[in-house]
Amino acid sequence: MSELVGPVEVIGTGLLGTSIALACRRAGLEVLLSDLSAEHVRTASALGAGRPRTPGDRPQLVVVAVPPDHLGAAIAAALRAGDAVVTDVGSVKAGPLAEVAGEPRVRRYVGSHPMAGSERSGPLAATADLFEGRPWAVAPHADADPDAVALVEELVALCNAVVVRLSPEDHDRAVARTSHVPHLLASLVAGRLADAPADYLKLSGQGVRDVTRVAAGSPDLYGQIVAANSAAVVDLLSEVRAGLDSMIQALTDADRDTLRVLLDRGVDGTRAIPGKHGGPVRPTASVFVSVPDEPGVLARLFAAAGEAEVNIEDVRIDHDLGRAVGLVELLVEESRGEHLLASLESRGWVTHR
Amino acid sequence: MSELVGPVEVIGTGLLGTSIALACRRAGLEVLLSDLSAEHVRTASALGAGRPRTPGDRPQLVVVAVPPDHLGAAIAAALRAGDAVVTDVGSVKAGPLAEVAGEPRVRRYVGSHPMAGSERSGPLAATADLFEGRPWAVAPHADADPDAVALVEELVALCNAVVVRLSPEDHDRAVARTSHVPHLLASLVAGRLADAPADYLKLSGQGVRDVTRVAAGSPDLYGQIVAANSAAVVDLLSEVRAGLDSMIQALTDADRDTLRVLLDRGVDGTRAIPGKHGGPVRPTASVFVSVPDEPGVLARLFAAAGEAEVNIEDVRIDHDLGRAVGLVELLVEESRGEHLLASLESRGWVTHR
Repeated sequence: MSELVGPVEVIGTGLLGTSIALACRRAGLEVLLSDLSAEHVRTASALGAGRPRTPGDRPQLVVVAVPPDHLGAAIAAALRAGDAVVTDVGSVKAGPLAEVAGEPRVRRYVGSHPMAGSERSGPLAATADLFEGRPWAVAPHADADPDAVALVEELVALCNAVVVRLSPEDHDRAVARTSHVPHLLASLVAGRLADAPADYLKLSGQGVRDVTRVAAGSPDLYGQIVAANSAAVVDLLSEVRAGLDSMIQALTDADRDTLRVLLDRGVDGTRAIPGKHGGPVRPTASVFVSVPDEPGVLARLFAAAGEAEVNIEDVRIDHDLGRAVGLVELLVEESRGEHLLASLESRGWVTHR
Repeated sequence: MSELVGPVEVIGTGLLGTSIALACRRAGLEVLLSDLSAEHVRTASALGAGRPRTPGDRPQLVVVAVPPDHLGAAIAAALRAGDAVVTDVGSVKAGPLAEVAGEPRVRRYVGSHPMAGSERSGPLAATADLFEGRPWAVAPHADADPDAVALVEELVALCNAVVVRLSPEDHDRAVARTSHVPHLLASLVAGRLADAPADYLKLSGQGVRDVTRVAAGSPDLYGQIVAANSAAVVDLLSEVRAGLDSMIQALTDADRDTLRVLLDRGVDGTRAIPGKHGGPVRPTASVFVSVPDEPGVLARLFAAAGEAEVNIEDVRIDHDLGRAVGLVELLVEESRGEHLLASLESRGWVTHR
């Protein structure tokens, strides 16, 4: 089994490509950069992500990090250009694979997909830490060379990410379920808000903000992603439609039992999502604190929680209507809730459960 | 116009009823409590929320805070029991109104609906601060006595909430859109996770957690709520189904233009939700910070942000898989992002954009 010693070529120096390049440089590997945009390559080089690729270079590993529509062609070109192992970081795995299948050199291709990103894009948003602790799917096809798979998993380890090994088909079905379909349904729900009277939207609470948040993502990028995974997405959307039909029928017929089954199933689904650090979901308690909307108040609040020696598992800030007061929800381990509440109250914070 | 001087009777001493009672007591009003559960009344009384109602009491205002299925009957009984103004805090307004319409005393009924709640329920979770800065819909029907409307709006002001005046029909259409339909779609998306292989769910990111979070709510309560608003909900679900059909067709036909229109409309919808404090949504920048998962770290981080004199608009903590490192996203006013980033980096924090 070969060791990852470089050079590593990164094709596409956007957020993901440049972040991988920076992580490889941090590990002391030589990194070669290429991009249709010469400016992106210059920027990435200036950030210390590597040097522009030259014709005589012989990379050990090529990382293809181009937009979804161009993945297949870029992977094929990289396989033809030399004898390097080739991976990519695209959101969909079966489609690009199909474009390069059926020739011997495909043994050197192992697709992958880091679960990391940012609302920002481009090399300036990149960081070697982007993948810290994140899941990173490695999706070898049936004919992939085991050494090539091992090399790609070394890259994942070097980025401090966590390998999740899946077949390309399972990967695509997985992200259809955990990412693409939630995004598309969030878009449909958000779409119903677009033409609502302003008075209606004054009643928006945290729930609708949570449900629709991802729908703010780039329509161009998401359009490419879901189109590239249309088979798995359509299968799952059809299941959702069947559920929606049952729900409409149940409401029309005042059939509470069917409605209850659908809602119960939703509760089961929220519990199926893995908890923090991949462990089981630990029961948490919420402590609500009313705070003025001013600089420094959260620092004082967290300092007070720290003095109480309670670890905050999660935080949510409620965006209130019409008043310069924020409601902060602190989620803590269930057994620590009462202690935190009492502790904050004794320090003069306005709390409730 | 009469002034709210009490006594205020609260029927149903759960979370909402007891919280309203506590707010009234804080304002010095006499509060009378009733509930099918004598234990709830004892608990609420012990919390200082008022005293049990006795037959000779003559309340000025009655607040009905019972579960959705029992609202209509409880409102009707309260109207018949005396000459008090009657309001309720139910999530749906047209249905209960229909149960009491067509008789003179309905002039004394003005429905309302505070946008507040908690994952906890019962009187022990109650607090006079529950409604601080929250929208509170006041939904008078066409024949409501203006003095009765004014009295209910006094109650809202006393709870430090913000009146949003809507007709009962508009209220129900509004919450169908901002609450009921988002909840039902979140349940359907979450339902698709319930039977997914565990390996698939390892790829869950923040997006699917956000989309599905509300689906963890009580199926019993939400079943009652959406059933009580079935006409408005079915109308809107049918619109969502039409959008879903278009989406499935567009993906099947590789029709990127139609897909793009649907995704663009979702973006518009996320922008239509009012921003913090009811103002327009201000553009924000995200600063990501990698932090160890240990007590006190958030206090130190927020102290560092406070020293940089940057106001944190929102916070999200990313639940990483497999590592005891958390990624904290700080959302700040767009113009302050670079400053916060530089400031945190100079203090040794591991940040990226």
